[in-house]
Amino acid sequence: MKKKVAVIGATGIAGQQFIAALPNHPEFEVTALAASTRSAGKSYLDALREPSGAIGWWCDEALDEHFAKMPVVDAETFDAKSVDVVFTAVESDAAKALEPRYAQATPVISTASAFRYFDDTPIIIPGVNNEHAKLLRKQQKERGWKGFVTPIPNCTTTGLAITLKPIYDAFGVRAVVMTSMQAMSGAGRRGGVLGLDAMENVIPYISGEEEKVQKETQKILGAMSNSGIESANFPVSATCTRVGVLDGHTEAVFVATEQACSVADVARVMREFKGNLEGLPSVPNPLIYVHDDPFRPQPRRDRNMNDGMTTVVGRLREERALSDNGIKYVLVSHNTKMGAAKGAILVGELLVRDGYIG
Amino acid sequence: MKKKVAVIGATGIAGQQFIAALPNHPEFEVTALAASTRSAGKSYLDALREPSGAIGWWCDEALDEHFAKMPVVDAETFDAKSVDVVFTAVESDAAKALEPRYAQATPVISTASAFRYFDDTPIIIPGVNNEHAKLLRKQQKERGWKGFVTPIPNCTTTGLAITLKPIYDAFGVRAVVMTSMQAMSGAGRRGGVLGLDAMENVIPYISGEEEKVQKETQKILGAMSNSGIESANFPVSATCTRVGVLDGHTEAVFVATEQACSVADVARVMREFKGNLEGLPSVPNPLIYVHDDPFRPQPRRDRNMNDGMTTVVGRLREERALSDNGIKYVLVSHNTKMGAAKGAILVGELLVRDGYIG
Amino acid sequence: MKKKVAVIGATGIAGQQFIAALPNHPEFEVTALAASTRSAGKSYLDALREPSGAIGWWCDEALDEHFAKMPVVDAETFDAKSVDVVFTAVESDAAKALEPRYAQATPVISTASAFRYFDDTPIIIPGVNNEHAKLLRKQQKERGWKGFVTPIPNCTTTGLAITLKPIYDAFGVRAVVMTSMQAMSGAGRRGGVLGLDAMENVIPYISGEEEKVQKETQKILGAMSNSGIESANFPVSATCTRVGVLDGHTEAVFVATEQACSVADVARVMREFKGNLEGLPSVPNPLIYVHDDPFRPQPRRDRNMNDGMTTVVGRLREERALSDNGIKYVLVSHNTKMGAAKGAILVGELLVRDGYIG
Amino acid sequence: MKKKVAVIGATGIAGQQFIAALPNHPEFEVTALAASTRSAGKSYLDALREPSGAIGWWCDEALDEHFAKMPVVDAETFDAKSVDVVFTAVESDAAKALEPRYAQATPVISTASAFRYFDDTPIIIPGVNNEHAKLLRKQQKERGWKGFVTPIPNCTTTGLAITLKPIYDAFGVRAVVMTSMQAMSGAGRRGGVLGLDAMENVIPYISGEEEKVQKETQKILGAMSNSGIESANFPVSATCTRVGVLDGHTEAVFVATEQACSVADVARVMREFKGNLEGLPSVPNPLIYVHDDPFRPQPRRDRNMNDGMTTVVGRLREERALSDNGIKYVLVSHNTKMGAAKGAILVGELLVRDGYIG
Repeated sequence: MKKKVAVIGATGIAGQQFIAALPNHPEFEVTALAASTRSAGKSYLDALREPSGAIGWWCDEALDEHFAKMPVVDAETFDAKSVDVVFTAVESDAAKALEPRYAQATPVISTASAFRYFDDTPIIIPGVNNEHAKLLRKQQKERGWKGFVTPIPNCTTTGLAITLKPIYDAFGVRAVVMTSMQAMSGAGRRGGVLGLDAMENVIPYISGEEEKVQKETQKILGAMSNSGIESANFPVSATCTRVGVLDGHTEAVFVATEQACSVADVARVMREFKGNLEGLPSVPNPLIYVHDDPFRPQPRRDRNMNDGMTTVVGRLREERALSDNGIKYVLVSHNTKMGAAKGAILVGELLVRDGYIG
Repeated sequence: MKKKVAVIGATGIAGQQFIAALPNHPEFEVTALAASTRSAGKSYLDALREPSGAIGWWCDEALDEHFAKMPVVDAETFDAKSVDVVFTAVESDAAKALEPRYAQATPVISTASAFRYFDDTPIIIPGVNNEHAKLLRKQQKERGWKGFVTPIPNCTTTGLAITLKPIYDAFGVRAVVMTSMQAMSGAGRRGGVLGLDAMENVIPYISGEEEKVQKETQKILGAMSNSGIESANFPVSATCTRVGVLDGHTEAVFVATEQACSVADVARVMREFKGNLEGLPSVPNPLIYVHDDPFRPQPRRDRNMNDGMTTVVGRLREERALSDNGIKYVLVSHNTKMGAAKGAILVGELLVRDGYIG
Repeated sequence: MKKKVAVIGATGIAGQQFIAALPNHPEFEVTALAASTRSAGKSYLDALREPSGAIGWWCDEALDEHFAKMPVVDAETFDAKSVDVVFTAVESDAAKALEPRYAQATPVISTASAFRYFDDTPIIIPGVNNEHAKLLRKQQKERGWKGFVTPIPNCTTTGLAITLKPIYDAFGVRAVVMTSMQAMSGAGRRGGVLGLDAMENVIPYISGEEEKVQKETQKILGAMSNSGIESANFPVSATCTRVGVLDGHTEAVFVATEQACSVADVARVMREFKGNLEGLPSVPNPLIYVHDDPFRPQPRRDRNMNDGMTTVVGRLREERALSDNGIKYVLVSHNTKMGAAKGAILVGELLVRDGYIG
Repeated sequence: MKKKVAVIGATGIAGQQFIAALPNHPEFEVTALAASTRSAGKSYLDALREPSGAIGWWCDEALDEHFAKMPVVDAETFDAKSVDVVFTAVESDAAKALEPRYAQATPVISTASAFRYFDDTPIIIPGVNNEHAKLLRKQQKERGWKGFVTPIPNCTTTGLAITLKPIYDAFGVRAVVMTSMQAMSGAGRRGGVLGLDAMENVIPYISGEEEKVQKETQKILGAMSNSGIESANFPVSATCTRVGVLDGHTEAVFVATEQACSVADVARVMREFKGNLEGLPSVPNPLIYVHDDPFRPQPRRDRNMNDGMTTVVGRLREERALSDNGIKYVLVSHNTKMGAAKGAILVGELLVRDGYIG
C-alpha cells in the first residue's frame, strides 16, 4: 500500500518538480493536487495554461498524462486528513498560514523557509542528520499536532552541508568560507532573473541567501540532545552570487579542520559516505562523487548525475590560509532536484522508513 | 618630446589592446610595431588579416588609421635601442628569449609572467607598490643592463592587490581567501575557451592561476628593503573559476585583519586611496569605487568605469569566520584594461615620472 | 536658442535612453521630465530608486548629474505648452490618452505604436521618407491641433526600411522576406525576457511584431500624395525571433527586385545613400555601412557603430529563389539607439530643419 | 544475429555520438573502434584522455563501460571485411581516402560530405527518400565494389528536407527561403566556436553551409529514375547563422507551394507523415511534431523530443510574399542526433530492412 500524497502549490515551478518526480514512485501515490483559488476546479493541465494559450510546464520531463487530468483543489480548503503526507511548495508567507493547519492532522514536508528556524523544528538532509527527526516528536507534543512540519534547507545549504558532513565527522570543522555561483532556476519564474541582467554577467547578491546558508549549515550539523538541536559552533561565512547558469549551484568551499587531513583523506571519507540511507528509493549512489579531473565539477555537465541527486565534488586541495589544517574544494549540487522537490521526497522516504510517517 | 615606444607582439590580442590604448597618448608615441617573422614586412592591417579575408581586430575601439598603415617588424631582430620603452605582449616562452635581449638597451614593461618571480624583479601595480621600482636599479646593476624588465601581475592579482592595499596599510592583513569568477577574454583567442564549454556553465579551474595570484599578491604587498622585496607573510588562498563573461574579473574576497575594522572604516580607506599617482595621464579617479548598492559590482555594468581603470568594489560586510577581525567584499577589475595593456601603460607613466625611464 | 524639450515616461527604460542621449544636445534642452503619479514630486534620481535602494538606471552612459537633480512632474497634468517638443516613451495605452492632449499645443514625437496606423499620421525615418512629414499638416488641420503626433516605427522595422530604401529607389522591390533575431532589450525590463527562457535558446515568437514590421515597412516606403500616404504594394513576410543578445537586432533579408542588380550595385547604392540629412546633429556617417567581411555584421560587434545610429549590412549575395532578380543580406540595427530614443531625436532634428517644429 | 559494426573516427565528437547511441542496439553490435594512428593501440578510454588527464568524453550519456575498455585500431589499416557495416565520422579529407577503401568490401554510412555530390551516390534521409537507395546498386556496379558509400546530409539540411517532404508530396513546392540559427555543436570542438565570439552575439556566416543546404535539399527531394536522381527544380535560398545555443538547429522556413494549402492542411500532412519507416528501432513517433503554442519550437526545450529524433515544428502561418500559395514555419532539429550519428544509424536500419545491408 502506497502512502497517499498531496502536493500543495502544484502549479508553481517548485510544485511542478514534485509532479515530474512522483510518477511511478514505489512508496508515494499522489492523490491530491492543490493550488491557489484561481486554479482550483480546473484540471492540472488547464491550471498550467497561460493567457497566450501556452502550457506553462517548465520541467524537462514530459508532463505525465495522469497528472494532466487530475483536478486541482484549493489549498485554502484542502483537507489534509485525506492524505498520509503533504508536500508543500509554496511561498514562505503562504507556508506560514497553510502548513500549521495541515500539520494538525498530517506530516508536512516543506520546501519553504517558514519553519526552518524554530527551535522545535529540524532541517533534515537525509544522510547528514537523520537523527534530528526525533525533534519532530517534541514539535508534535508541544503544538498538539498529529502531524508535523519539517522543512528542507535552502538549496544552497544542501550541497554544502552534505560535503561538510564526512569532513566534520572525521576531522572536525573549525571554520567554513564559501562563495556560491548559483543557477537562475533558484530564483524561479515569477520575479525571476531577467535575461538583461543574467546574460554575460555575475550578480553578486541574493537577498537573504547568505544568512540562510550560514544559519542552516550550523543547525544541520548541530548535535541532537533531549532538549533540542545545539547548532555547530564553527563559523560559516558565505558570499552568494548568481551566474548565467540554468540549473546547478556551484560552490567554492574553504574549510579549516580541527585535525590534519590530506586530500586523499578527504576524498576517501567523501567517497565512503553512505549516511545510513541504504535502500531508500531515491537515494543516489554515491551520495558524493569526487572527480580527479581538475576541470570538474561543472554545473552543466555534472548537475544531472544520478538524476540530480548526487553532490559532485572536485578540485580537492589542502587549505592553509584559514588555519593549520584544512581542505578546499568545489561542489555542484542540483538546486531543483536534490536541493528541492526530489530532496523533499527523499526526506519523506527516510521518515517513512524511520517510522515518523505511519 | 614624447617617449618613443615599441609594442612587441602587436598582432596578438594583448598587443592589440596596447594599439587601442596608445593613440593620442600625451607621453608615449608608438614608433615600432613588432610581431613574429610571419607578420614582419606587412602593414599592421595586413598582418591582422585572416585567411578568410576578415580583419582579426578584436578591440571595441576602432583601429586607428595611422597604426593600420604602420609596418610590422620582426620581434626577433627588432633593435630596442631605437625606442625609449618597450611594451611586450607575447607568450611567456617568447618573453624569456626576447625581453633580456631588449633590456640590455631599453626598459621593458611586460604583460608576460616570465620575470615575475625573480628576486631582482618587482611586480609593480601603480599606487600599490611604487617604491618597488627601486629594485630595478639592482636588476640593472647585477645583470649589466642599461634597461630592465618589469612585469605587470596576472590580471587576477591586480584587483585583489589594489583593494587589499588600503586595508593592509590601515588595519593589517592576517589572511586572505578569494574565489574568482573570471572572464573569457583572460584566456585569449588562440586556445581560448570554447563556446561549448563556457555557455551556461562554470569551469572551476584555470591552470596555474591560483599559484600566481597567491604568490604575486604576497610579493606586491611585500616590504622593500635594501636587499630586495620581502613578501608579505599573510597566506592567500584562491579558487579561480571561469564564467561566461566576456570581460571583467569578479572576485569574492574574505580578509582577516590584524585590527578591528568596520564596514564604514574599510569603505573610507578604499575611497580615500590615492596611491601617490596624481597627475599620471592614465590614472583613474577614483582608483577604487565603492558601491553601496548590494547588487553591484557586476562585471558587465562596472568593468568599464573610467575606461576600465577603476577597481569597483561592493558588498562590504564584516568577516568573522577567519578571525576576530575582518572584512569581506566583491570586486570587479577589467582584466584586459587595468589588468593588462592599460595597466602596463600606467606603469610606464609612473616610471617616467619617477625617473626610471629617461 | 535651443528648443525646450519634455521627456514623458522618463523613468522607464525607453525614457532613460532619451535622458542618456540629450545632455549637451546642440538644439534641444530638456526642461521637463514627466512620469507617472507615483514618481511625481521626486527628483529624477529618487524616482529611479528601487525598493532595495539600488538606482534603477539601465543605460551604459553615466546618469548626468543635472538630470539626476531635476524634479519629475506628473505626466497626467503636465502642461505641454511649456515646451517646444514632447518626446514620449510610454506604453501604448498611456500614449493613446496622453499624446492627443499634448498635441493640442505642441509637437509630440513618440516611441509608442498608438498613432502609427492612422491615415493622417506618418511614420518617419529620417532619410527614408522625410517628405511624409507633410501629412502632419493635414493631421493638424483635421484634428484642430497646434501640435501633432508623429511616431517612430517599431525598432525591427527601422533597419529593414533603411536598407530597403536605396534598393527600392534604384531597382524597385517586388517582395521581401525577413527573419529577425532580436535582442532582449527590445522587450524592456517590466515583463521582460527571463534568463531561464533566453539562455542557450531561441524564442520563435514576439507577439504582434511581425504584423507591425510588415505594415510599417509598406507605409514608410509608400508614396506621399495630396490625399495621404499610399503604402508600397510589395508584400513583406517576416518571422521574428528572440535570441540571447542584449542589444542590436539582426535581420536576414531576402529581396526580390524589379530590375537586375548585382552585389556591387547594391553595395554601391547603400554606401552612397545620404537621405538628405546632411548637417543634422545626430545623423551618422554613413547611414548604412556595408561590410565585405562575411562574418559581419554581428550584433555585439557592430551595434555601436557611430553610437548606434548606423545600420550595418553584410553578406550581400544575389537572390534568385523569390524571382529572377534580387539580393539577400544580413543587417544589424541598434534597437534602443537608432531604433528608439536617438532615432526619435533625429526625427526631431529633421522636423526642426524642415520647419515643422517652430 | 546482430550485424557487426565498426565506428571510424570514434574518438572525435561525431564518433562519440555513435558510441553513445549504439549500446544495446537491437540490430547492431560494435565490434571495432578505429581512429587515427595516434590513438591506435590504446583502450578507448585512454584514447579519450587529454594531456591534462581529463577524459575528453563530450556526450551527455555516460560512457558505456564495455566501450571504454575496447581497443582502438588504426583507421588506416582497419580491415573493413571484418564487419557488416562501417559508420564513418571523420573529416571530409580523411573520408575521401578511407571510405572508398572500406567500400570495396563493406557498406559505409558516412557523416562526411565527401561523397554527397557524386551522381552515383544518394543522400538518404529515412522517410524522405528511401527509394534513392536503389542508386547504391549502380554505385556498386560501376565502381566494382561489394559495399558502397552512402552519406547522410549536412545537419542543417535534415530538418528542412524532412519538413518539406509532406508539403512537397501534397501541395508541390515552387521555392524555399530559409534562415537558420544553428547550434555551436555543429562546429565541433577542434576549431570550434569561441566563447568570445558566441556569447551575446549572432555570427551571420558558416563557411560552405548555405551551398550545401541548397544543393542537398534539391537532391534529396529529387526524383529517382533508372539513370539516377534528378534534383528537384525549385530554388532554395538560405542564410545560415550561428547563435549561442549548444545543440539544436532552429530554422525559419518560407515555402511557396504549387497548390493552395491552409495552415490546417499543412499541420495535418506533417502530423500524418510516416515515411514507410514503421518498425525501425530508432524511428521516432512522430517523425514531425507540430506545436500549436506560438512560443515553440525552442531549441533548448524541443531538441530532445524522442531522444533528438523528432523534427519539431511550430508557428505555421500562411505565406504570400513568395507567391499566391504557401506556408511559413519554424523548425528545430537536433543536429548531433537525427542530424548526425543517430540519423546515420537510422539509415543503417533502413538499409538492413530493405536488403542493402546483408
